[in-house]
Amino acid sequence: MKRRLIAAGVFGSAALTLGLIGVVEVRGDSRSPSAPIYGVQLPEGYRDWPLVAPAQEAAPLDELRVIVGNPIAMRAYRDNIHPFPDGSVLVKRAWKHEQSPDFEPASIPGAATTVQVMVKDSKRYASTGGWGYGRFIDGRPVDEAQHRTCHACHAARVSDRDYVFTRYAP
Amino acid sequence: MKRRLIAAGVFGSAALTLGLIGVVEVRGDSRSPSAPIYGVQLPEGYRDWPLVAPAQEAAPLDELRVIVGNPIAMRAYRDNIHPFPDGSVLVKRAWKHEQSPDFEPASIPGAATTVQVMVKDSKRYASTGGWGYGRFIDGRPVDEAQHRTCHACHAARVSDRDYVFTRYAP
Repeated sequence: MKRRLIAAGVFGSAALTLGLIGVVEVRGDSRSPSAPIYGVQLPEGYRDWPLVAPAQEAAPLDELRVIVGNPIAMRAYRDNIHPFPDGSVLVKRAWKHEQSPDFEPASIPGAATTVQVMVKDSKRYASTGGWGYGRFIDGRPVDEAQHRTCHACHAARVSDRDYVFTRYAP
Repeated sequence: MKRRLIAAGVFGSAALTLGLIGVVEVRGDSRSPSAPIYGVQLPEGYRDWPLVAPAQEAAPLDELRVIVGNPIAMRAYRDNIHPFPDGSVLVKRAWKHEQSPDFEPASIPGAATTVQVMVKDSKRYASTGGWGYGRFIDGRPVDEAQHRTCHACHAARVSDRDYVFTRYAP
């Protein structure tokens, strides 16, 4: 892989604050293996990225989910910039949907299930709408067959929103 | 109100990165009115704070929720520091649970409902386990009667976890 396309998380927040936005190519997590087809890695520091929105997925997956974004993607959301600029990274975290032991009406995250990543590079990923996809379980990418399904679904359903399902939570 | 106890959000991330942690008293949102009893304000920049965990609340509230934390609170979660240090701030955002128009098994945030804030100051809030509470709708605090219910519920259910329901998502 020639380039590392994943933006660093906490660093990204500092860069946002300090006005350093515009650095597109920063570090992926060097420990993270690359997904097939796209070469996407788990981004460093994504656990500290700002929220785009939560979501819930019904059975059979039965998951709670949260989508977060790196500073480039978050700026695009806030300023309504479309399409997303190169360097935008979105990460969806997912957990099993579990009953809270502390409060009857509440459900909370159980075990982590998948982490799914979208990376915008309009040249490298020109054949898939400018997006590269990575789907990880326990830090390891799933197989190539699963990665072949990512863009087809996004293209079928949200091609008019730059292939991104998640809207910025109000 | 003598002191502003709310930590600034994006600034907080930068401070975390730059090693400036330890600044407890930073700015509340000067536009945010203060909650009754506790004087808690909506913190500046909380929309960019890192995720603690998502949650779901069943009917009748029927909400998706996300809990985020300022740098002091996030460090406590990561490093398993208990009780939470003074200056810790937790924010719970909530939205109506709505069917996604794009993907049948998914639910997404509808209208924002409440934003709820917990601020740790072991001296100022000594009579409520060290926590001050604020509950906001459309940026305005709800009434005193509602604020009187906050700590009683936390104390009844999670006094052994420093009165904090939400665990750090795995």
